[in-house]
Amino acid sequence: MSPPFAIVHRVRIDEVDAAGVVFFPRYFGWCHDAMAGLLESLEGGYASLLTRRSIGLPTVHAEADYVAPLRFGDDAGIALTVDAIGVSSCTMAFRISRIADAVRIATVRHVVVLTELPAMRSRPIDDDVRALFERHRATL
Amino acid sequence: MSPPFAIVHRVRIDEVDAAGVVFFPRYFGWCHDAMAGLLESLEGGYASLLTRRSIGLPTVHAEADYVAPLRFGDDAGIALTVDAIGVSSCTMAFRISRIADAVRIATVRHVVVLTELPAMRSRPIDDDVRALFERHRATL
Amino acid sequence: MSPPFAIVHRVRIDEVDAAGVVFFPRYFGWCHDAMAGLLESLEGGYASLLTRRSIGLPTVHAEADYVAPLRFGDDAGIALTVDAIGVSSCTMAFRISRIADAVRIATVRHVVVLTELPAMRSRPIDDDVRALFERHRATL
Amino acid sequence: MSPPFAIVHRVRIDEVDAAGVVFFPRYFGWCHDAMAGLLESLEGGYASLLTRRSIGLPTVHAEADYVAPLRFGDDAGIALTVDAIGVSSCTMAFRISRIADAVRIATVRHVVVLTELPAMRSRPIDDDVRALFERHRATL
Repeated sequence: MSPPFAIVHRVRIDEVDAAGVVFFPRYFGWCHDAMAGLLESLEGGYASLLTRRSIGLPTVHAEADYVAPLRFGDDAGIALTVDAIGVSSCTMAFRISRIADAVRIATVRHVVVLTELPAMRSRPIDDDVRALFERHRATL
Repeated sequence: MSPPFAIVHRVRIDEVDAAGVVFFPRYFGWCHDAMAGLLESLEGGYASLLTRRSIGLPTVHAEADYVAPLRFGDDAGIALTVDAIGVSSCTMAFRISRIADAVRIATVRHVVVLTELPAMRSRPIDDDVRALFERHRATL
Repeated sequence: MSPPFAIVHRVRIDEVDAAGVVFFPRYFGWCHDAMAGLLESLEGGYASLLTRRSIGLPTVHAEADYVAPLRFGDDAGIALTVDAIGVSSCTMAFRISRIADAVRIATVRHVVVLTELPAMRSRPIDDDVRALFERHRATL
Repeated sequence: MSPPFAIVHRVRIDEVDAAGVVFFPRYFGWCHDAMAGLLESLEGGYASLLTRRSIGLPTVHAEADYVAPLRFGDDAGIALTVDAIGVSSCTMAFRISRIADAVRIATVRHVVVLTELPAMRSRPIDDDVRALFERHRATL
């Protein structure tokens, strides 16, 4: 088992809302950035999945529990683990914490499905992508 | 029982991603826009909740199931109903459909908590806000 | 001469930054929305330019002078006039004001070029698009 | 004279529009990120300017010339130089290029004014900020 794959994101001035806290949909984008970062280790990187191999990974389910707010200038750690891998789908869990004090900020879950573009038809996950997901599978 | 409160959103050129479909976190923003639209009927409108009454409605849980994609130029209907009202929290359900053919696009659920700003301490939902939520409660 | 084409935009909770004012790049998006609104009157609407006729209108120059800030809940009026029309290009001017008190907020200018997609090669502006731009040309 | 301060930005899947190219207002956000990166070297970093010292740097003028498009997965280099420093204002120039082939993508210019928050009254630039700007002044 690998440690979780993680990225750090510093909250930008335009990511907070009028209440001074990060607007809740932005966390989903950061988690997508973490998945993109994981997929960078594939041959050609994440973008080439789409641009050369015509593979998409649309999200079919997303959910988040928000525990504490983040503010401008905070550094967020986003740790990704793979919870489950099916024939075409993969369930990923993300733990978001504030780096300064390790406070848990949010827990996020995405289910993505490997699809052929532009038709967006699901198909079995390619071997290299599956192997990468397997390496980041959380085990107890 | 009222019919669901609904808004229409035309997909902008910058709301789709490199796969040509609406980027999944954007749906949460549209649902928040629907809630904001509902709250416009309060005295002073939605913004005055925050700016004059120092009340926030942060989202503590959000989830979405994505059934079909939307593309640039599509009109989305976002219908809001209130599922549950607690002392401080409110659970809202959103059905997103494509106006042209009534195809179901996504189902979204938000749980918001009424809080005092800037402390973000939860407190019982104010009477006018509660009455508004009650009027849009879905009944069977 | 027509009056300027105009749209109204209510500032959303996530359009302000940590200083509580609208983040400056967002005004360019609103001006693009105004141009999109103008182009809706074409047969098939704005999106069909791109999706059916394979025409793009990329911005080759954009500039803005910011005079006063906008805040959450403000209604902004965005008025568009056409300043100049060339063989392939069109220069548009946008005046952004706060609806409540008519205060000038910003002046924006975009130069767009009609291009064939996906190559993005410029070509003479189509007759229906040119006629629409002409109708909104500012004259003294 | 220092070399220009520069950051690298990898184009995300949601930064391109329905034409497949980066939506033009996003470049202004990246340039703001470059300025934020420059200001990180101040005591407490960029965010503390706003959160502890109650100083804002609103943009009063922004302009961009777009030469070539960027697409999903491209790495953009954003190089910042200071063109002019006034009593309260600073003019910054940004050159954006595609890292892979050094093609010039855009030239951007921002004028920011140091202001006291929340009043947004301009005031002379603080010594440490001025010294930082001076170190990145382009000279011929």
